[in-house]
Amino acid sequence: MQETTRQDLETVQKVLREAEQYEHACRVLNYDEETICPKKGMEEQGEIIAFLENRAFSLKKDPAFLAAADRLYEERKELEPLDQVLAETLHRERARTKNITPEMDAAHRKVYSKAFVDWLEAKNRADYRIFAPSLQAVTAAQKEEIAKCEGSYATPYDCLLDQYERGMTQKQLDEIFGTCKERLLPLLQRIRKSKKKIRTDFLSRSVTDEQQKQMAEWLMDVLCFDKERGAITTTEHPFTDGLGRDDVRITTHYYPNQFLSSIFTVIHEGGHALFEQLQPRENWDHFINQNKTMGMHESVSRFYENRIGRSRAFLSLLYPKAREIFPQVLSDVTEEEFYEAVNAVEPSLIRTEADELTYTIHIIIRYELEKEIVNGETDFATLPQRWNEKYQEYLGVTPANDREGILQDVHWASGFGYFPTYALGNMYHAMYATRMAKDLDIEKEAASGSFAGINRWMTDHVFARADQVDAPTWIREITGRDLTPNDFLNYLEEKYGSLYCLKGCE
Amino acid sequence: MQETTRQDLETVQKVLREAEQYEHACRVLNYDEETICPKKGMEEQGEIIAFLENRAFSLKKDPAFLAAADRLYEERKELEPLDQVLAETLHRERARTKNITPEMDAAHRKVYSKAFVDWLEAKNRADYRIFAPSLQAVTAAQKEEIAKCEGSYATPYDCLLDQYERGMTQKQLDEIFGTCKERLLPLLQRIRKSKKKIRTDFLSRSVTDEQQKQMAEWLMDVLCFDKERGAITTTEHPFTDGLGRDDVRITTHYYPNQFLSSIFTVIHEGGHALFEQLQPRENWDHFINQNKTMGMHESVSRFYENRIGRSRAFLSLLYPKAREIFPQVLSDVTEEEFYEAVNAVEPSLIRTEADELTYTIHIIIRYELEKEIVNGETDFATLPQRWNEKYQEYLGVTPANDREGILQDVHWASGFGYFPTYALGNMYHAMYATRMAKDLDIEKEAASGSFAGINRWMTDHVFARADQVDAPTWIREITGRDLTPNDFLNYLEEKYGSLYCLKGCE
Repeated sequence: MQETTRQDLETVQKVLREAEQYEHACRVLNYDEETICPKKGMEEQGEIIAFLENRAFSLKKDPAFLAAADRLYEERKELEPLDQVLAETLHRERARTKNITPEMDAAHRKVYSKAFVDWLEAKNRADYRIFAPSLQAVTAAQKEEIAKCEGSYATPYDCLLDQYERGMTQKQLDEIFGTCKERLLPLLQRIRKSKKKIRTDFLSRSVTDEQQKQMAEWLMDVLCFDKERGAITTTEHPFTDGLGRDDVRITTHYYPNQFLSSIFTVIHEGGHALFEQLQPRENWDHFINQNKTMGMHESVSRFYENRIGRSRAFLSLLYPKAREIFPQVLSDVTEEEFYEAVNAVEPSLIRTEADELTYTIHIIIRYELEKEIVNGETDFATLPQRWNEKYQEYLGVTPANDREGILQDVHWASGFGYFPTYALGNMYHAMYATRMAKDLDIEKEAASGSFAGINRWMTDHVFARADQVDAPTWIREITGRDLTPNDFLNYLEEKYGSLYCLKGCE
Repeated sequence: MQETTRQDLETVQKVLREAEQYEHACRVLNYDEETICPKKGMEEQGEIIAFLENRAFSLKKDPAFLAAADRLYEERKELEPLDQVLAETLHRERARTKNITPEMDAAHRKVYSKAFVDWLEAKNRADYRIFAPSLQAVTAAQKEEIAKCEGSYATPYDCLLDQYERGMTQKQLDEIFGTCKERLLPLLQRIRKSKKKIRTDFLSRSVTDEQQKQMAEWLMDVLCFDKERGAITTTEHPFTDGLGRDDVRITTHYYPNQFLSSIFTVIHEGGHALFEQLQPRENWDHFINQNKTMGMHESVSRFYENRIGRSRAFLSLLYPKAREIFPQVLSDVTEEEFYEAVNAVEPSLIRTEADELTYTIHIIIRYELEKEIVNGETDFATLPQRWNEKYQEYLGVTPANDREGILQDVHWASGFGYFPTYALGNMYHAMYATRMAKDLDIEKEAASGSFAGINRWMTDHVFARADQVDAPTWIREITGRDLTPNDFLNYLEEKYGSLYCLKGCE
């Protein structure tokens, strides 16, 4: 490495190290706002966060930093692999933002922030018309950002997609989701016509917070969540927050009449947390630890939640434990009834409550509308109608109002392109589960009482390179194949075909 | 006001405003460390806090800021009252720290931080010898700081005292604590000889966290704690933290076999919180909101906890509520038995568990030893022995080991001069309660189910000027009298004389 390159690397690292300290503080303050900060304290705390964010932002706008980053990108072939990833990451970020003036940035922040407020109000009143002007403004802002974005994209939507799922294109999504519709919709039809009766009465029996806490602690132990490097607390909307190298926190919620909710929330968020806790430490040291895509992250959480958590093998471990912790709920329930209830398929209106099978259909509906909004000329006034028609067509249910329809998700208040990553997570994990099965007896590991063996495989194959490559490269490296929805669809057809006796039972 | 003075004021305010943003962030990060941050995440978070503190510190070392502050102090007579308080505060802070070099400051921080670690280890092993070298180093550091301190103090100890209780002197404390010993020790003797039997068996009956939470919520409503501008959570050692103008948080702990503990913790910490929530807003705007002394703060928390919380009037309100929330605990307990148990006097070894009467004696023991350490030449090897002798002499109990003796409190790991403020709190609140009784029917207010009336009086008389004047001026303004322990001693003699039938019963 040349002396000048070494110096540039030092310049860049020094700025990133300082910026990271401000950003770390912001993450703690944001976490505090999400979990405990009192209502009227939020305004002041929001100002502090903005102040610290601005400090970090200014550091990264320093001409010496930008010039050093540019030179590093030019000389990237000379760099060590992780430094090369860093140089590419900085270049990519800059390409996306360099043409956005501070004025435009400030104006757009206002648009998104107003959209959030309007969305909340609209949702509370179940009236899309309150949100519609803001949704139009968000769309205009997104289109402006796309226009300023450097890089060659086949469609405007591709530019947004690239932010959340590096390397993914609309073309590929069209194919994938096309196949999904071809196979999922008929499968769902057959399930709906099935005579199989699944008992679910016990799912709404009362449990205490204490019991649910005890279950959460046990689950975290089975997951091998490192409690010295993480924490759990409760929030209305559960999330995972990687605050620091040794500080990854998950949240859950305890509903008195839905004991399954916290169980699968803890496994889902615990999966996100394992991804962070088990990532190579040098990713932090090279400032690339936030490179993994949303789809990668969601693949991991869904792998643990659904592929492992809702499997027969794991449920054979969970069932006796759940009977022990919630005796009043499961005393008259057999293991088979428990398995069936956990996996019952039921087309519903709300994405976040959807089962493993219908979930992807909820995403496809959003994807189809997003494309229309971003790529074309949308009639915003009739959007809720098209939302409702798609729900009726694909899932056979129709929202009674906008709150349980188009207003249910917050995402559109800050833009488009995020939703598909949720569905891609399903495709990815099904693919690497196929590969994992060659090395591991997954059922045996899932029932063993410790996910240590699974976690080791995940660390070596799934986590190791996630921060270093784009999504298509990553899945190819893990599985030796390009992205395909077939593993996921095969898995669903087999699992639910059997559960709903689609090829006959007994 | 002259133009230059106006400019100086602007210069100072601009720096303080920016420093306050860093400091606010630090308070949130510290709170996070105390409540949820995982063990191994603390090191990194500690670095972030140090980084942000250093930013604030550097701002206040700016020569232009210091020069403006100096000029404002010279011209302070010209300023508006609150700006004058600010000028004096900045001047005082500078006088205390200007002669301390960054090297000395760094060296002392290390001493205190090592002392904390050694204290913890020593306490865990119940072995004072592990802590002794650090205690000596702390003493040396404190003496160095005293030597560098500008201002005229009659004794070295006075300089430390002035940090925590502005305006208080050793001479005054000697008189006050002398009187306390003269009257408290005989009173305690008489109580110990009393034949009065107080029933306490029910205090250790089992309760659930849920029940205790319900009680805490009710108590906060009675206190009129503003829940939109504050929050409650749990920690091993309860505290109150004023994070921001509209963000004051308290913590409590839920012990399954000590239901009274959380009740009086919530009232105590709630008192601290009311002091912050009800302070004039302009104190924040003038950057003087942290001027109140430790003794003032402790007077308020003890006023609510003991004077109101343990009064017959308030307990007549609490008793039926407690029976409702904890039926398994109080079904066979009369209101009189409840009152007696809440107020039982029992000489004990641990300060934090002491009753209202013996608490001050615990403080006097620490005060006497602190004076010896700071003003004279102490034999550190025999300190635990002197601690134990004083406990035997004053309270009639002897620690079985150093953990329940000299190692019980963390305070000495960071220096001396803090303990007396706990006892001064008692003297202050007894004095203003005497004054309050002229305006309010305190018993009626305490039993009314809302402390709104009491809080209003406290706001007008006790809270209003606390940030603006020193402790002696403050208590004189509230009561028209100089500090005296007599109100407190009269109150104790009357309350406990009656409870223990010292003048005969029935």
